[in-house]
Amino acid sequence: MIILTLNCGSSSAKYQVFDWDKREAICVGLVERIGEDVSHIENESKDKEVYDAQEYFPTHKEAVEFILKIITDETYGCIQSRDDIKAVGHRIVHGGETFTKSVVVTDAVLKDIEDNIPLAPLHNPGHLMGIKATMDVLPKVPNVTVMDTAWHQTMPEKAFRYAVPKQWYTDHKVRKYGFHGTSFLYTTKRAAALLGKDPKDVNLIIAHVGNGASMCAVKNGVCYDTTMGLTPLDGLVMGSRSGTLDPAVIRYMAHKESMTVDEVDTALNKKSGLLGVTGKYIDRRDVLKGALEGDKDCILANDMECYRIKKYIGSFVAALGRVDAVIFTAGVGEMARHVRKGALEGLEVMGIKMDERRNELSFTQRAETIISADDSPTKIFVIPTDEELVMAEDTVALLNGNYDVHTNFEYSFQKPDYVNKSRAIALEKQLIDRPELKEVIVTPKM
Amino acid sequence: MIILTLNCGSSSAKYQVFDWDKREAICVGLVERIGEDVSHIENESKDKEVYDAQEYFPTHKEAVEFILKIITDETYGCIQSRDDIKAVGHRIVHGGETFTKSVVVTDAVLKDIEDNIPLAPLHNPGHLMGIKATMDVLPKVPNVTVMDTAWHQTMPEKAFRYAVPKQWYTDHKVRKYGFHGTSFLYTTKRAAALLGKDPKDVNLIIAHVGNGASMCAVKNGVCYDTTMGLTPLDGLVMGSRSGTLDPAVIRYMAHKESMTVDEVDTALNKKSGLLGVTGKYIDRRDVLKGALEGDKDCILANDMECYRIKKYIGSFVAALGRVDAVIFTAGVGEMARHVRKGALEGLEVMGIKMDERRNELSFTQRAETIISADDSPTKIFVIPTDEELVMAEDTVALLNGNYDVHTNFEYSFQKPDYVNKSRAIALEKQLIDRPELKEVIVTPKM
Repeated sequence: MIILTLNCGSSSAKYQVFDWDKREAICVGLVERIGEDVSHIENESKDKEVYDAQEYFPTHKEAVEFILKIITDETYGCIQSRDDIKAVGHRIVHGGETFTKSVVVTDAVLKDIEDNIPLAPLHNPGHLMGIKATMDVLPKVPNVTVMDTAWHQTMPEKAFRYAVPKQWYTDHKVRKYGFHGTSFLYTTKRAAALLGKDPKDVNLIIAHVGNGASMCAVKNGVCYDTTMGLTPLDGLVMGSRSGTLDPAVIRYMAHKESMTVDEVDTALNKKSGLLGVTGKYIDRRDVLKGALEGDKDCILANDMECYRIKKYIGSFVAALGRVDAVIFTAGVGEMARHVRKGALEGLEVMGIKMDERRNELSFTQRAETIISADDSPTKIFVIPTDEELVMAEDTVALLNGNYDVHTNFEYSFQKPDYVNKSRAIALEKQLIDRPELKEVIVTPKM
Repeated sequence: MIILTLNCGSSSAKYQVFDWDKREAICVGLVERIGEDVSHIENESKDKEVYDAQEYFPTHKEAVEFILKIITDETYGCIQSRDDIKAVGHRIVHGGETFTKSVVVTDAVLKDIEDNIPLAPLHNPGHLMGIKATMDVLPKVPNVTVMDTAWHQTMPEKAFRYAVPKQWYTDHKVRKYGFHGTSFLYTTKRAAALLGKDPKDVNLIIAHVGNGASMCAVKNGVCYDTTMGLTPLDGLVMGSRSGTLDPAVIRYMAHKESMTVDEVDTALNKKSGLLGVTGKYIDRRDVLKGALEGDKDCILANDMECYRIKKYIGSFVAALGRVDAVIFTAGVGEMARHVRKGALEGLEVMGIKMDERRNELSFTQRAETIISADDSPTKIFVIPTDEELVMAEDTVALLNGNYDVHTNFEYSFQKPDYVNKSRAIALEKQLIDRPELKEVIVTPKM
């Protein structure tokens, strides 16, 4: 069974094609600058040539149309015909309080996503364009939506409510929602497998650190708390987002620089975080390079990012009481050893003891590794995330009629013997150059 | 030597008169509703009748004039003549980055406090009115300012900077300042005495929970981090202040209810916190009563307050690595056993183990008590704060020329044998009714 996953922004579309019978992604691609004068597409099918070209996509419809053309192309594609596609899974950032699990798209679902636009004005409109474009181009194929927020709907009220006037919640849905839920779901199930436990028995702290970044406290296998809030602005120091700060900063800056509240909000989302502190860098590799060269702003930005992660780890240990494992995932979490080191140092008092050598060895996106010391009561794992796999599996299960909320559903990847084949193959090559990596790999079994 | 301490708000003035030779507060008083049609004053001198009356104080000058009249009154007062007053110590909420310790008031100091008004528009103007009124009424008496923010100036940059555009800091001083510094100074020195350590060797987490509330991480005896920020809005759930929330809530609510940024900020300061969640209560005793009667909003408000304190304890344990003691202080911290219980339960994993019976026994503002279990690696103390004593001692030391920043100055109250006499006398009476209190008292020695 062939499944297409789509993650559409207002001017972009990331996609993967899954051959579900083999549990394998056979194509990954990215479209950018939809609606601009020159658009761009990059497509990589398994064992095929990369297609990387400028095109012109005035709307999402032309983009989806072209994706279907390229993935069925003899030279660049991965499937014979668009009729092979049995369903499309769409990522939705903000499902509000409406959705606790993935659903098949209906008119009512589209209306709910639209109703939640005020909660995610930068994300939900693009998602809707992507779904509608797919419905136009593949009218007979069912669509499924997978919401970032669904995972977080198990939070207790004391964790998700803000101490604001009650009617802000009852009338306007002001509360903590949380994001990156698909990644937290995947890493929770994987961590349970690595711990040899049932997911419902694990307490975890997961740091999903990419350009956007958030953390999740998992209690008995479900979300208990998270660092992002009403929107993805709150919490950690991110590439260009501020994360938490005194909310009074907004009034203060609005007056100081005669900005509107929208202008301050945009500055907090687009000109803050590492970019704001360094004045120039979003990418952690640039920040690290600058820091190593003695740039004080880079040193500070890195210190702030690590310190913020460390403090949230502490707050979630307090919230959970017992923690089986701390997990790092997403690009930075998987690769940036200096960020993990800065965040983990000095946590021994709460039973979290990093092994410095293991942490230094662990940078691969092709295997799951352990970086805690043998005598650390809490394990520390680095688990490459796989949000698209969750999207594909939810989509297949909804088609097959055996899907349910994650606590009642068993994912293929939560089985102890699960192996991501393409990663395992890539890992074999990597181990030729870096055999010492074997010291920290926990899966696939060496 | 007689010292007057003054804590002036925009329409209020709290004061104490100290007989410094006896290290004793001989009068406490409060003026309210300055500038309104009917003002109010309450004055209680040691061993004298309480004066409690409506008066008319059009400005702070008339209020200070009346305070001097009542404290020198034969029936209600505590001193012979206003000439006995050798200096006045003023509390200043926001000293910005200018002040790292208390100072004698000069024109330059007044200008600095004025320059910091944009950082504390609700507080600093009232303080200035109080100082100027005192200079008018007692022109020959030196004035001293004691800043809430001074204590926090030792924070490392990674703790006090926000991840916002750098020029917001360099041009507009946007950073974390922290408040309640005088209380944190007092409780730090007292905690060191209770631990039998030099202040410079103690790591502490202090929760100052009153109507306003903030927490402080103390490393090697000085402030390392705190929960309030640019203003006193951030951090804990307070009586009417929201504490931390996604900064994007402000833009969202400004649009949803067509509010200005000032109106949203006012709602977060005056209509949020426990008042916002319950819709009716600021006082924790009312919230507790409501919760015990089954009011769901009260139960939630209390849960949120406790959960927030608990999470900050965890984050500060992570920040400090080793914690000698957790301290509760200020009205709620000293008296509200249910808040301490909710905040402390489940922290054993980080070496913080409350003793339930001790916590239940500990409600007195007349003694220092211990509420940790004997086998708790981190001690937990309840220490009644005494900000006015710090103000008086700073004032005396500045007059005497032997004052310095707290790390180079030895306060009278940090000596192991320090006893607050009036509290000790009041405690003796309390112990007649509640002899079991003796179980938890650490000082004064029983």
